[in-house]
Amino acid sequence: MTQDTQSTKAPMNGAESLVHSLLASGVDTCFANPGTSEMHFVAALDHIPGMRSVLTLFEGIATGACDGYYRMARKPACSLLHLGPGLANGVANLHNAKKAGSGVVNIVGEHASTHIALDAPLTSDIQGIARPVSHWLRSSASAAAVGADAVLAVQAARTQPGHVATLILPSDTAWNDGGCLHEPIAPPTPTDYDKHALKKAAAALNGPDSLLLLGGSALSAANLEIAGKIAARTGCELLSEWSNARMERGAGRVAVARVPYPIEDALAALAPYRRIVLLGARAPIGFFAYPGKPAVLTHEDAEIIHFVQADGDLGAALQALSQASDAEQTAPVLSQRHTSPLPIGATTAESIAGVLGQCIPENAIVVDEAITTGRAFFAATKGARPHTWLNNCGGSIGYGLPVAVGAAVACPDRKVLALIGDGSAMYTVQSIWTMAREKLDVTILIFANHSYQILRGELTNVGVQNPGPRAIDMLSLDRPAIDWTAMARSMGAEACRVDDCADLAEAMEAGFACQGPYLIEVTV
Amino acid sequence: MTQDTQSTKAPMNGAESLVHSLLASGVDTCFANPGTSEMHFVAALDHIPGMRSVLTLFEGIATGACDGYYRMARKPACSLLHLGPGLANGVANLHNAKKAGSGVVNIVGEHASTHIALDAPLTSDIQGIARPVSHWLRSSASAAAVGADAVLAVQAARTQPGHVATLILPSDTAWNDGGCLHEPIAPPTPTDYDKHALKKAAAALNGPDSLLLLGGSALSAANLEIAGKIAARTGCELLSEWSNARMERGAGRVAVARVPYPIEDALAALAPYRRIVLLGARAPIGFFAYPGKPAVLTHEDAEIIHFVQADGDLGAALQALSQASDAEQTAPVLSQRHTSPLPIGATTAESIAGVLGQCIPENAIVVDEAITTGRAFFAATKGARPHTWLNNCGGSIGYGLPVAVGAAVACPDRKVLALIGDGSAMYTVQSIWTMAREKLDVTILIFANHSYQILRGELTNVGVQNPGPRAIDMLSLDRPAIDWTAMARSMGAEACRVDDCADLAEAMEAGFACQGPYLIEVTV
Repeated sequence: MTQDTQSTKAPMNGAESLVHSLLASGVDTCFANPGTSEMHFVAALDHIPGMRSVLTLFEGIATGACDGYYRMARKPACSLLHLGPGLANGVANLHNAKKAGSGVVNIVGEHASTHIALDAPLTSDIQGIARPVSHWLRSSASAAAVGADAVLAVQAARTQPGHVATLILPSDTAWNDGGCLHEPIAPPTPTDYDKHALKKAAAALNGPDSLLLLGGSALSAANLEIAGKIAARTGCELLSEWSNARMERGAGRVAVARVPYPIEDALAALAPYRRIVLLGARAPIGFFAYPGKPAVLTHEDAEIIHFVQADGDLGAALQALSQASDAEQTAPVLSQRHTSPLPIGATTAESIAGVLGQCIPENAIVVDEAITTGRAFFAATKGARPHTWLNNCGGSIGYGLPVAVGAAVACPDRKVLALIGDGSAMYTVQSIWTMAREKLDVTILIFANHSYQILRGELTNVGVQNPGPRAIDMLSLDRPAIDWTAMARSMGAEACRVDDCADLAEAMEAGFACQGPYLIEVTV
Repeated sequence: MTQDTQSTKAPMNGAESLVHSLLASGVDTCFANPGTSEMHFVAALDHIPGMRSVLTLFEGIATGACDGYYRMARKPACSLLHLGPGLANGVANLHNAKKAGSGVVNIVGEHASTHIALDAPLTSDIQGIARPVSHWLRSSASAAAVGADAVLAVQAARTQPGHVATLILPSDTAWNDGGCLHEPIAPPTPTDYDKHALKKAAAALNGPDSLLLLGGSALSAANLEIAGKIAARTGCELLSEWSNARMERGAGRVAVARVPYPIEDALAALAPYRRIVLLGARAPIGFFAYPGKPAVLTHEDAEIIHFVQADGDLGAALQALSQASDAEQTAPVLSQRHTSPLPIGATTAESIAGVLGQCIPENAIVVDEAITTGRAFFAATKGARPHTWLNNCGGSIGYGLPVAVGAAVACPDRKVLALIGDGSAMYTVQSIWTMAREKLDVTILIFANHSYQILRGELTNVGVQNPGPRAIDMLSLDRPAIDWTAMARSMGAEACRVDDCADLAEAMEAGFACQGPYLIEVTV
């Protein structure tokens, strides 16, 4: 229940019942881009205490922030979006959130029911726009229904792994009286693992040609420790998927490498395994198809054991597997704090990786959208101070800065380090303004290679060996080169530019020391 | 046919047949945001001459540029978008294009057909995302089908008024051999006007309580001249819809005021009319619904005569109406060049309007997304030098800068003047980079009121009389204030800031004189 039960006894309009019901269900953070049809919701936020409203200047920031918030808070925030086009602007990051298993409650304003048939300029098929990215979707039919619908949306969003729930509110359902407060409903309990699969999984994990492939909440510190015991006991290897919504790692934790992104590397990494147990992970496939290359990345003789999917109770499954493997008393191998001298000289993909290994602060949240520059970062930070690592699970670029916003709002006492390629950063660059406004402790490293570098490799992968000037030009961002320090300052963030490792380490220290966002343009 | 018929006799892959067929159909401009699944298209662009490829850093720029290009070139450009999320980023401006009647050919990459079932991270329901904004939608089934599908997409886009056509290309249909060049197909001819309605329309237009409401291509200079004859002959009034895709106006042209946006003003403007003839326009309705206010804006006793819709041959309909009204020999009233001293003092909504009236250059293209600041601009520029005026027809903000990109690409010999509110500009701010890269002659006025000013009015309109600090905060952009000159320079554009009318006039002159984009932050 909310603190202000008193006020909920007075007659409410639909918008007020929405805010009260969201608060009662534990949703107390809203990333908002409101428009006219959402004005009653804004008015309700104004006089009902308890909801933190964070303004964003583009809807993709709001939905990406919801994703980052869920990953760190383990509960959904809500977005507030203006009609179909506002929702559409948030769809790419909702796609990413959906693939990451992040729970999100979208509140989307709609024209008043009487207005929809008139086909006004902003009229669109909002349900149609929402459907491809929503697990749960509903338009409220009346002010009286809004409170109950909101509670159902939160319940849906809290389904494990988190779901995307979209609630469409015609503006008359917001402004009409008759709103009702609804009590929260518990989400469904996670599905249980299959006992038969447990036996098969325990038998399969035996020696270095067996692999336990982990995903989802199996990558929490506690669950990784159990996985580490199983690996130490059975001799199996541990890997995670290429993209993980959240992984706990660094010194003192069980290290898990990821299946690589480049297809040749992925094939090589998975070639040794003949028995692969999936625990919250999916069977490895290529990110893209390439002419003449396989899409299934595992060895053709590998047996795939589907033990438990991401919607299962992964902690219980790991416990059971540990027991069945007689691993409970085995000590896992933990990462050691890796201290080596800071790299010296120019900032390159390799030397930056070395700097990160030394400079990630204790308990930091690392948002990784470093794309090509970042390929070596993960391995080099295995022995860094303990930290949390977030990947893009949906592959739509522009996820990193918004997710950093949400993570910072969820964890005000932790430092956020955003590692972003320049091409990706431009997609949702407006995030910097919200970071400055909310004084979010985000240190942003922009890797300025002034190109869509990954696509140059992909051009070769799809069989184009000698791209000509027009093709190269379509993948180049150097004409003009973006001045990232001016960009950051234009939106109220501090910024500097470095091309040397010592300067990078110093700048990172300055970034972590300052309150609010700090952008470092790193020449690569 | 293309100039390089020779090369089309060699075996082609699907991507090459796409480029050749687009060129043969007259589509020679591509606004692109490619990804891996579009690499074969990029490779084809590389070695087939004739297609101008313009790189954008966010898909909303690409689709908005297609909209602006169509409005000025009167033929479609194509976008190149990466999978479902890339398309989703372009949906809001496709919504605007669809409402503006702008023809667009979207080329959207998809995973190879064999890869879709594997549910890779970037897999999504692309057709589902496209459907709400597409008049025409198809996924190519094979390399052999791509050329024919492209030609059909162009045909669909060229339907009057322009349609949004979305062609989805699984990457194997791009890289497989067997592509075929297809000849262009003519679009359907516009529907004819109803002869019975012509008689009714001609009878209705009689005196100042009758209105000829114009939309679509009725707002070309030639068609407006015919409308002006009809008005002069019959005594009827002329108005256009609030939002027009393109209107020719200024000195020497027939002036047409717009139905105002604020609901009270719209009701007052339409109150006098008892007979309203719709010619390419729709019956006036409110942009939004408001509690207790009407949605239909015309007088309850007004007779609405649906003469011809936007898909009709509006020029022929006007000619016929002129003949039926015996107006062919009547002289229309033309706007006089309005020369008055430049306003002096601080830049305000009113004084800026005065500056624009004097400073719009001959034959300029004015892209209007000035929202609240711009309410007085239209009337004040009636007697400016002849120019073209473009409005946002779909209401999704962030249309202006991308449309300016497309208009400038379509008309390299004309000056583009973009009038943009600061809230709107942030939505698609990445446009500035493409303007700098392509050296587009766009002078951008950013009206920096540091708020979503329109929403403050809307809060009152929906009945919130005394918004509190949290509501006001959700509509404020002043914490931090965006430094628009730094923003522009970060992307390679020249910029300055003015707060005085004389400085604004001087800055505009500098903007029109320089090659490439020039941004002027106007304090209001």
